[in-house]
Amino acid sequence: MTRSADRLIVATADLKSFVRGCMEAVGVAPEDAGIVADVLVAADLRGVESHGVARLRRYVDGVRGGRIRAERALTVLREGPATALLDAGNGLGQPAAVVAMRRAVAKARDAGVGVVAVRRTNHFGIAGYYPGIALAEGMAGFAASNASPQVAPTFASEPMYGTNPIAIGLPTDPRRPFLLDMATAVVPRGKLERLRREGGSVPAGWAIDQDGEPMTSLGELVDGLVARRGYSLLPLGGEGEQLSGHKGFGLGLLVDLLCGPLAGAAWGRHVYGPEGADLGQVFAALRVDSFRSPAEFVAEASSLEAEIRAARRAPGEDRIYIAGEKEAAETERRLASGIPLHAEVVAELREVGDGVGRSFDRDCPPRH
Amino acid sequence: MTRSADRLIVATADLKSFVRGCMEAVGVAPEDAGIVADVLVAADLRGVESHGVARLRRYVDGVRGGRIRAERALTVLREGPATALLDAGNGLGQPAAVVAMRRAVAKARDAGVGVVAVRRTNHFGIAGYYPGIALAEGMAGFAASNASPQVAPTFASEPMYGTNPIAIGLPTDPRRPFLLDMATAVVPRGKLERLRREGGSVPAGWAIDQDGEPMTSLGELVDGLVARRGYSLLPLGGEGEQLSGHKGFGLGLLVDLLCGPLAGAAWGRHVYGPEGADLGQVFAALRVDSFRSPAEFVAEASSLEAEIRAARRAPGEDRIYIAGEKEAAETERRLASGIPLHAEVVAELREVGDGVGRSFDRDCPPRH
Repeated sequence: MTRSADRLIVATADLKSFVRGCMEAVGVAPEDAGIVADVLVAADLRGVESHGVARLRRYVDGVRGGRIRAERALTVLREGPATALLDAGNGLGQPAAVVAMRRAVAKARDAGVGVVAVRRTNHFGIAGYYPGIALAEGMAGFAASNASPQVAPTFASEPMYGTNPIAIGLPTDPRRPFLLDMATAVVPRGKLERLRREGGSVPAGWAIDQDGEPMTSLGELVDGLVARRGYSLLPLGGEGEQLSGHKGFGLGLLVDLLCGPLAGAAWGRHVYGPEGADLGQVFAALRVDSFRSPAEFVAEASSLEAEIRAARRAPGEDRIYIAGEKEAAETERRLASGIPLHAEVVAELREVGDGVGRSFDRDCPPRH
Repeated sequence: MTRSADRLIVATADLKSFVRGCMEAVGVAPEDAGIVADVLVAADLRGVESHGVARLRRYVDGVRGGRIRAERALTVLREGPATALLDAGNGLGQPAAVVAMRRAVAKARDAGVGVVAVRRTNHFGIAGYYPGIALAEGMAGFAASNASPQVAPTFASEPMYGTNPIAIGLPTDPRRPFLLDMATAVVPRGKLERLRREGGSVPAGWAIDQDGEPMTSLGELVDGLVARRGYSLLPLGGEGEQLSGHKGFGLGLLVDLLCGPLAGAAWGRHVYGPEGADLGQVFAALRVDSFRSPAEFVAEASSLEAEIRAARRAPGEDRIYIAGEKEAAETERRLASGIPLHAEVVAELREVGDGVGRSFDRDCPPRH
């Protein structure tokens, strides 16, 4: 571990090993523990620290506290030539999501497209991890999940549904594929948590209080969201309809309708109820060569992206980014030079490790 | 026709008959002319006047000028169990889109899901029309199209891609299904055209000029977009990344990658080139009963929507709207009491009719 301002730098493999060890320590099978580690560390590699190892505690505590089942308990409830519905049996979200996405890819291999929904599952980490499973097969991939209620519908002043992320990957440039990974709220809660650690503030248009007034205190907002004290994030597009907040609300509700009523999971205010999370998730894969030769697709997608990158810049801007590009570059950097962890996150990881008999400092030795 | 302020009220069937007559007069077969009429008037019924008969001229002139082929010239280029790729042969967008959506529905009937892409096609009117074909079969429906370049990528100051709409319908309440029909830009150009007719102005966060400065003159903006003078609409989420404009940009580019490079149509700045529009479109249908019994889905979706509608209101608001609800209510009203057409639109329709030997005033007699 190397100190860099208030950051400690650790190696990817070491961090994965620590996470895997913690999950195994609470009774998770090696394969599934490895999947959880891979998904969490993938978020840290991309710089999406809000969804990385900073969330390890919730999975470890969830399994220890019996709110998440340690063993994989997946069953297939319905199946067709290009679709399937799985019940995750309240197991960990990441392994269930990997199985579901792989099944969508297998369906797509035969039918051209595959759609797999999962009910009774748990938080699956970054949505953007799962399209990668399709991308590795040269296919387009889609993932969406509902989430705990934190977002106010357009014209409402209380949280009724989650930040409900959508992730879509297209196999354009293999080194940096198009990968859109977005909360349908204007920002995810994780970003607020990171900003708070870094000492930032809440910009106008992100959140409102119980009276529908703009919410400016970051600390109060984050604590209030966690404690469900009525504060709300706003949908993508912000408050009201002036900047089309109703579109962000529409996207968020779409995800809840697919993951809740369609998949047969909980929805809206009822996810994370007394009987556990009961999240719903939907995954899809699409074969490029059902429509176009992959080589032609890649060539034209690259030309489109190149033209976009060469567009005239807005004042003060020197670069235009394609979805996923920043995260791919950050992943390359961090794979080479290590993952910087905030001191607060390190302290929490030490605590989590100590709680299950696993030493963070032994697993993650100094990185040179 | 009845005068109401600066509006003239006409009957739905009469307006359809006029549009059908105009399209037939330029050599379009009755079935296809009927489809164009149905799609255009559906937009007027919903109150999306920007995409209704106000656009008749572009289709009539397009066919007369040889930029759009009058005859249907659809061919199937690729086909799999759940997918197909069609070439519309530069025919009208609406009939090709209806055929494509019907084929997606047929695929979904067998496989659970169907995805159909179309290349070499033309403007298809409101995206939200096409999911209705799936909804009528109790399925979910999806439609997307690329469009002429009018939107600036995040951090750019020139238009590089279109307002690229996405429409998604879910068969919730049959009387008012969930139907999200959204430009991925903060607003579509049609909305600006309507505001100009009504004497409105451009709110901050909608558009920028060639220097990346906020664009405030509605007249200059609309004319500049049409003439491609470098003005740009902003993506959903607005300028920069503060309010997540990069998500709207990501969604818009996603649509262009699917409709352009994947479908094999033109993309980005090259749609509506010297050789015609060469738009690309993608349609999909999904069977609800691949995942859930339709009755259970409808019951739970209705409960979710009811809870959302009952949320505490923001100050000054008395109602929360589900996507598609306003348009469904407007359709019921207009079917009963007629479609109000702005005087400027009426004048244009008279001109278009006169140009092809069809009388607007004879087709659309006074509505009582």
